[in-house]
Amino acid sequence: MEIQEIRNATMKITYAGRKFLTDPFLAPKHSYDPFAGNSPNPTAVLPCPMEEVVYGIEAILVSHVHIDHFDRAAREVLPKEVPLFCQPPDVERLTRKGFQTVKSIELYHTWEGVTITRTNGQHGTGTWGEKMGNVSGFVLQAENEPTVFWVGDSIWCEPVEQVVKDLHPDIIITHSGGAKFPDSDPIIMDAEQTIALCQAAPNAVVVAVHLEALDHCPVTRAALRSMAEKAGITPQQLLIPADGEILSLHPRS
Amino acid sequence: MEIQEIRNATMKITYAGRKFLTDPFLAPKHSYDPFAGNSPNPTAVLPCPMEEVVYGIEAILVSHVHIDHFDRAAREVLPKEVPLFCQPPDVERLTRKGFQTVKSIELYHTWEGVTITRTNGQHGTGTWGEKMGNVSGFVLQAENEPTVFWVGDSIWCEPVEQVVKDLHPDIIITHSGGAKFPDSDPIIMDAEQTIALCQAAPNAVVVAVHLEALDHCPVTRAALRSMAEKAGITPQQLLIPADGEILSLHPRS
Repeated sequence: MEIQEIRNATMKITYAGRKFLTDPFLAPKHSYDPFAGNSPNPTAVLPCPMEEVVYGIEAILVSHVHIDHFDRAAREVLPKEVPLFCQPPDVERLTRKGFQTVKSIELYHTWEGVTITRTNGQHGTGTWGEKMGNVSGFVLQAENEPTVFWVGDSIWCEPVEQVVKDLHPDIIITHSGGAKFPDSDPIIMDAEQTIALCQAAPNAVVVAVHLEALDHCPVTRAALRSMAEKAGITPQQLLIPADGEILSLHPRS
Repeated sequence: MEIQEIRNATMKITYAGRKFLTDPFLAPKHSYDPFAGNSPNPTAVLPCPMEEVVYGIEAILVSHVHIDHFDRAAREVLPKEVPLFCQPPDVERLTRKGFQTVKSIELYHTWEGVTITRTNGQHGTGTWGEKMGNVSGFVLQAENEPTVFWVGDSIWCEPVEQVVKDLHPDIIITHSGGAKFPDSDPIIMDAEQTIALCQAAPNAVVVAVHLEALDHCPVTRAALRSMAEKAGITPQQLLIPADGEILSLHPRS
């Protein structure tokens, strides 16, 4: 399988011969207001034209509909006949955007030989976590393919930990930018939480994305790498792709 | 497969050659205080000695740990080495009760060829629903066996409806007593909600339990049958077993 990190949580994932696009956030740099007062968003350019991002896409996976996961640019440029898989609370909103095949996943759904299982997450703690609303992740499974667990916009929390322990995913994709507001705890994983996940899944390849694209995400790739190395997490276990980078992935064990 | 309704949500389910016990609530009639001021609970006798209920059990499924789903009598009489499957929030509490193999299910778990998938529910609406806490249901699937969806202590709500629509279960088990408190909406399905589920799953066999065993459950078997018949739901589609009754079940389609 291959993962191309595009920017933030937007990835092109080739899995079981199918091309998935995740959380399309396609606007040019600085199109939107700051989230935390630091800079307009996104803070990074797309690494290629948005038409190239969507080229060849056969399915879209959406973890939730915050603007940095599904934006106006995505709505405009994405083909509307491509099946779009999402969590149940988002189905009406995405259908209203004109997509013709929006399928919400409560438990699991099998599409073209790929079983897509929804997972629960927590988009922060306490009242911030509640305010941020429902978020999901997805597990991809298919015959002769590694099990991939895309955690989504979640902190390291019990439901995520249990999926890691139960399914022993070969590949785990984390959102590791440590997004936070001035008065909140991290609302997605930060470096410490990403390291905790790596330690809980010593045989998995962990791919950290959702980094250096938004003004409320303080964790840099360099800082994550440095903290991970100090914690004994090798660059073979934790991959931190640059925007545009393509990873060809195989199970470690 | 066979389902023996014991009382309330306690059932012996024979599935793929394995004997499951659900939500063991085994105390004699009138052992506990009233829930709604009407009568001590349970309001019905066990239809056989509790030793007979637990005889031959190979696994225990617990939807949540309210007393009418797991009680002191169950704790005393159940063999502790039998695997017990539950929702994640209940694993510590059930482990403290002395069970040696408590397995919490976040997504799914396969045991002896039976895949047990956890489903979400809502134990009421509004603040009552929140106060009642987390509840789960479980789907049982195995080769050459019907798909069984035990909804658990949930009202008819979106997550339940989506499982019905997505998985097309052959057998659906509902808790249909319409439990409520003086100032609450129903916290489990009542007759109307059970009928709505039957209408949403016209090809399934629906088995209604959790009836006539607790002082806060006003729906009687006779009332449910009468309302269902008026709504055009046949006795072939909706089964309402008496306490102790054994149902031998086959998919309708």
